[in-house]
Amino acid sequence: MFDAQKIAFGPIVFQATKSMIDLGILKVVSTAKDQGITLEEIVEELDLSVYSIKVLLELGVSTEILHLKNDRYLISKTGHFLLNDRLTQVNLNFVHDVCYQAMFNLKASLEQQKPVGLKVFGEWETVYEGLSALPAQVKKSWFEFDHYYSDMSFSELLPLVLQTDPRLILDVGGNTGKWAISCAQYSQDVKVIILDLPGQLEIAMENVKNYGLEKRITSISANILDDLPAIPKEI
Amino acid sequence: MFDAQKIAFGPIVFQATKSMIDLGILKVVSTAKDQGITLEEIVEELDLSVYSIKVLLELGVSTEILHLKNDRYLISKTGHFLLNDRLTQVNLNFVHDVCYQAMFNLKASLEQQKPVGLKVFGEWETVYEGLSALPAQVKKSWFEFDHYYSDMSFSELLPLVLQTDPRLILDVGGNTGKWAISCAQYSQDVKVIILDLPGQLEIAMENVKNYGLEKRITSISANILDDLPAIPKEI
Repeated sequence: MFDAQKIAFGPIVFQATKSMIDLGILKVVSTAKDQGITLEEIVEELDLSVYSIKVLLELGVSTEILHLKNDRYLISKTGHFLLNDRLTQVNLNFVHDVCYQAMFNLKASLEQQKPVGLKVFGEWETVYEGLSALPAQVKKSWFEFDHYYSDMSFSELLPLVLQTDPRLILDVGGNTGKWAISCAQYSQDVKVIILDLPGQLEIAMENVKNYGLEKRITSISANILDDLPAIPKEI
Repeated sequence: MFDAQKIAFGPIVFQATKSMIDLGILKVVSTAKDQGITLEEIVEELDLSVYSIKVLLELGVSTEILHLKNDRYLISKTGHFLLNDRLTQVNLNFVHDVCYQAMFNLKASLEQQKPVGLKVFGEWETVYEGLSALPAQVKKSWFEFDHYYSDMSFSELLPLVLQTDPRLILDVGGNTGKWAISCAQYSQDVKVIILDLPGQLEIAMENVKNYGLEKRITSISANILDDLPAIPKEI
């Protein structure tokens, strides 16, 4: 029963938590440490109405992000993770900036088998076509999420992929070029071809140039969701 | 840590759960009872792609709405509440239809001290002005939520409010007139004046007429958030 209500109010808890972080409330409570802080003291610290602060504090207590003891607010363990843990922040920002609005159309998307909610950002067939044209904040949260998870795996994958000393790697869906650049840096002998959509390749090849790797990293423009592009014979 | 992630992915879990209910997946799994049901059997029952069903089933298992045992899906206790409990349904529909999109603007609303997200439905100062003009589905979920909680309290409140045999009751924010009608039905001697916005009064007085109570229930049109209306001398 309690778990069902948690799901039912999930979007409200999510937005209240995001606001509590973005408006600095969680930070102020956290700074007060073990002694906690009163509503009045929080109001003094922030340029926000008493009502706005009170609404968020009450939701914070009921979701156990905050504790309330003798009229003093303290941050909980969950609150600490929300405020300080990079994984949690990356997830929160990705869900808010990239997914939240589009998810309102999930049912229609599953029925029609296309990303109906994508219209929030533009009239594309898939988000990948629009990736380089997304609003700055959306793009930022997308790449931070993407890179947080992929970057962590690079150190484990690079030795595996390069242990047979390949001469050429085809990086399908090369995104911003991070993987291709890592491969080229890991081994002086390898060449990489990044395969991606034109918009993505522009960003990727700009990065490749910044690392001075344009001699060993080249690109093929193609949409692998549509058709199988011509794969170079050497591969 | 785990609780922080649950908050971070709350909107996605919410929409997936809502879709699982609305697309009939939870119902099909529930009907299979203790023996459970396989993916293939669910696909046969529903007019949905395997991919759509699989995505939702996987999310259902990871959020413990479903259990997976030997390739058979079973509904959990949380799943039962989501499917059958009226309180949970009322909350889910209210959060989805009324709150979800507007909540995206919570931070701006708290900073500007006005309902910024209300623009999703119309250009009103408060939602109360627009209540009678909301889209049908939104209105339905609003009133079901509103009435679910208030109706439960009627049986407890009526004896208390009417124990002193009042001759006249002022029903501030009378909404659809349910409370006024209940009071007039509870005691033959009481008259009620409903005070609300014009759009609301139209609905309320229509209901009053349907109950044949228009001689004892009248109305005053006013916005109590703006100014204090002229209260009848008798009160």
